[in-house]
Amino acid sequence: MTDLDTDHLASRIRDRVARHLPEHVAELSRLVAIPGTADRPDALAETAALLVDVMGRCGLRATEIETGGPPVVFGERHVGNDRPTVLVYGHYDVQPVEPLDAWHSSPFAPEVRDGRLFGRGTGDNKGQHLAQLLAVEALMAEAGELPVNVKVLIEGEEEVGSPHLADFVRAHRELLAADLAYTSDGPLHPSGSPMVILGCRGYLYADLTLHGARVDLHSGSWGGVAPNPAQRLAAVVAALFDGDRVTLPGFYDDVREPAPADREACAALPSPAAHLARLGITAPGEAAALGARLSLEPNLNLAGFGGGYVGSGIQTVIPAHAVAKIDMRLVPDQDPLVLFGRLAAFVTEREPDAEVVLRGATPPSRTAGDDPLVERVRRGVAVGFGQNPLLLPALPSTLPDYVFTKLLGIPSVIVPYANVDQANHAPNENLALDNFAAGIRCFAAVLRSLADVGSV
Amino acid sequence: MTDLDTDHLASRIRDRVARHLPEHVAELSRLVAIPGTADRPDALAETAALLVDVMGRCGLRATEIETGGPPVVFGERHVGNDRPTVLVYGHYDVQPVEPLDAWHSSPFAPEVRDGRLFGRGTGDNKGQHLAQLLAVEALMAEAGELPVNVKVLIEGEEEVGSPHLADFVRAHRELLAADLAYTSDGPLHPSGSPMVILGCRGYLYADLTLHGARVDLHSGSWGGVAPNPAQRLAAVVAALFDGDRVTLPGFYDDVREPAPADREACAALPSPAAHLARLGITAPGEAAALGARLSLEPNLNLAGFGGGYVGSGIQTVIPAHAVAKIDMRLVPDQDPLVLFGRLAAFVTEREPDAEVVLRGATPPSRTAGDDPLVERVRRGVAVGFGQNPLLLPALPSTLPDYVFTKLLGIPSVIVPYANVDQANHAPNENLALDNFAAGIRCFAAVLRSLADVGSV
Repeated sequence: MTDLDTDHLASRIRDRVARHLPEHVAELSRLVAIPGTADRPDALAETAALLVDVMGRCGLRATEIETGGPPVVFGERHVGNDRPTVLVYGHYDVQPVEPLDAWHSSPFAPEVRDGRLFGRGTGDNKGQHLAQLLAVEALMAEAGELPVNVKVLIEGEEEVGSPHLADFVRAHRELLAADLAYTSDGPLHPSGSPMVILGCRGYLYADLTLHGARVDLHSGSWGGVAPNPAQRLAAVVAALFDGDRVTLPGFYDDVREPAPADREACAALPSPAAHLARLGITAPGEAAALGARLSLEPNLNLAGFGGGYVGSGIQTVIPAHAVAKIDMRLVPDQDPLVLFGRLAAFVTEREPDAEVVLRGATPPSRTAGDDPLVERVRRGVAVGFGQNPLLLPALPSTLPDYVFTKLLGIPSVIVPYANVDQANHAPNENLALDNFAAGIRCFAAVLRSLADVGSV
Repeated sequence: MTDLDTDHLASRIRDRVARHLPEHVAELSRLVAIPGTADRPDALAETAALLVDVMGRCGLRATEIETGGPPVVFGERHVGNDRPTVLVYGHYDVQPVEPLDAWHSSPFAPEVRDGRLFGRGTGDNKGQHLAQLLAVEALMAEAGELPVNVKVLIEGEEEVGSPHLADFVRAHRELLAADLAYTSDGPLHPSGSPMVILGCRGYLYADLTLHGARVDLHSGSWGGVAPNPAQRLAAVVAALFDGDRVTLPGFYDDVREPAPADREACAALPSPAAHLARLGITAPGEAAALGARLSLEPNLNLAGFGGGYVGSGIQTVIPAHAVAKIDMRLVPDQDPLVLFGRLAAFVTEREPDAEVVLRGATPPSRTAGDDPLVERVRRGVAVGFGQNPLLLPALPSTLPDYVFTKLLGIPSVIVPYANVDQANHAPNENLALDNFAAGIRCFAAVLRSLADVGSV
């Protein structure tokens, strides 16, 4: 082990990342080119195999582990029992790509334009977990060894709610034993600042389906007599909320009053107003209130509603079917399964023949901000990004972070690397190359900081 | 003129129709093979040209007349100023064909299966107006001349709300002068009985569109802050009705109390319960009430609603846009333009940025049941179908019938020929060959009955 304690290492890593960035982008492109959506188990298997190779080259002992779904890719480098152990989490599956015609380049033919790599999965999440692996590689190359023990768990089902992850974690407690979980996913703060995030909103996704006649009927011939499932389902969906407030009975019952520190952290956030304006949205309140709303308050979202004819022109039909896709974002101590029961009861009370299907459920998570390891992570992120990170009580979005905090009982932090306009879950997803490079530098600095060796 | 007064003519026409049916089906197939949807002006022009040829062969002096949209095809045979004149109406444009994958054979590759011709436009309306032309041809062949004067007006924009028809009728009052308008469109009564119908429900079609952010957003990142146009539009749509009752303010204000004769006619209708069961619907009331609801009561229908992700699996987006397609069926004295104003006000009061676009508007129509020509039509239909027709105060569906009753000031009847399961406006539209043949026989008998010559 050499040089871990020199002030020169940070700049050597910075130089190395800049020098090797074209190869790193090429490696990310190889990962993005594999269309690992949930409906492509072949592509998921191919991604897992490639990740094992990449991990091995970076200096980790890597393997695939069965889960009942796509395999977990697990990698590890142990440097000493006296050193802390960090457990990295990531996911190699990606979101669907519809609407395909809105992409300027094919989602699985990654292309660099304007300093960004465009493609499905560039930021969510392949570019972000690859950054951690490349940081390991950089430290091995520049310092000869890692400053702490590193474990890496990359799963293949995050975008469909991680259905096998909890069982996997329960079955491999010893393998996964660590002092801190560390995840990079999602974008920087809308202000452009890096963040250290102490948890996630939970999540619930459900499909509501209602059927009418066997086929679409002529609304002239049958309007007023045949049931209209789109109309009836719209009424059910509309009854779930009143403006911004969710009216599903019991929705707010288990919301824990946020700690004063959480409120203060949100109040300290810069305004996202300029970013909202770029998205075409007028900010509906003060910045502090927006931050609190996204991190500390739950939400119910209609992710999709379809029924009947929605093309141009006129088609006068009574739809035979209608579907609504509902997702909720939940905060401590809301339980997604309890809320699914309430949603199902609410829907079937109004429409007894409605089908209500649970598609995904993830509890919320929260880590204490005063954990000493959290402070070390903050110092590392400051070095990696060259600016102090914001502290956010919870990621507005969802990761299966609860498996670390609740199942393993360890603190867990999320440090996003992606640009704010990454368009994850949307057409033209992209990762800015600057952010990719900063992510590699950041994780190298975090590992050094966690070892508490020298000044970072 | 020979033989118009013999009892043998009806049976000679019956024999002729049976003998020539394969050729008649082939001719209908040629018309159906032309994909005359509103977005295909080339195909509409081709259909009009073919119709001129067919009319000429059948014995009419035929021509195309400019309208500003697709041409009207007009044909005429004048046999004497002492004879009544009947003005036939039809339309050669067809509905869109989506969802295409639900068709068992291609909509524009007509195919006979199980005694039906399948294809878009078979029943709505090519097969029905072709039946009138073939009846003219049959009478010319078997009797040497027509018993009354016949005019035929076939337009090419009915499925998009006949935007040029009213102006056309106003501009050609003399050309169109007649004693009675006669239209065949839509299906027989669900019981299978033929009908003579004394008007139509009116119609209004509007698109409601709401925009949110410039692109679909990740519901995790922005749920609770970004506006959700699908959610907001669902709330607006749901506020338009309460169960079966329309809650749009003023919707029922101008509904004329139905005449006792109209109520009695509806009460005399057979139950459509068995037909409803085939469609997968449980009849929501007594048969008499159903008939009255379809003919005498107005309705508001959500013909389609789309926004966000509606595929299988999970996509967690806040939709950037949402659209609702609203159609209304109206009764005397509701005015579609007045109601459009009320709809637009209702929507924009709730969502000031919503786009509300009128796609089609047709006033309702009504003809007096005690007109002597109506009685002659009933007698003709009884001969053509071999059973007494039901009398219906109004077609539940919409035709631009008001141009005859309101603009020309003449009585107008609708005599549908299609089978009840014709699936008009839906996949697998079809016309039963028995109904096609009955339609030809029916119009021949109606023409003889209108001349009041001999016993029909």
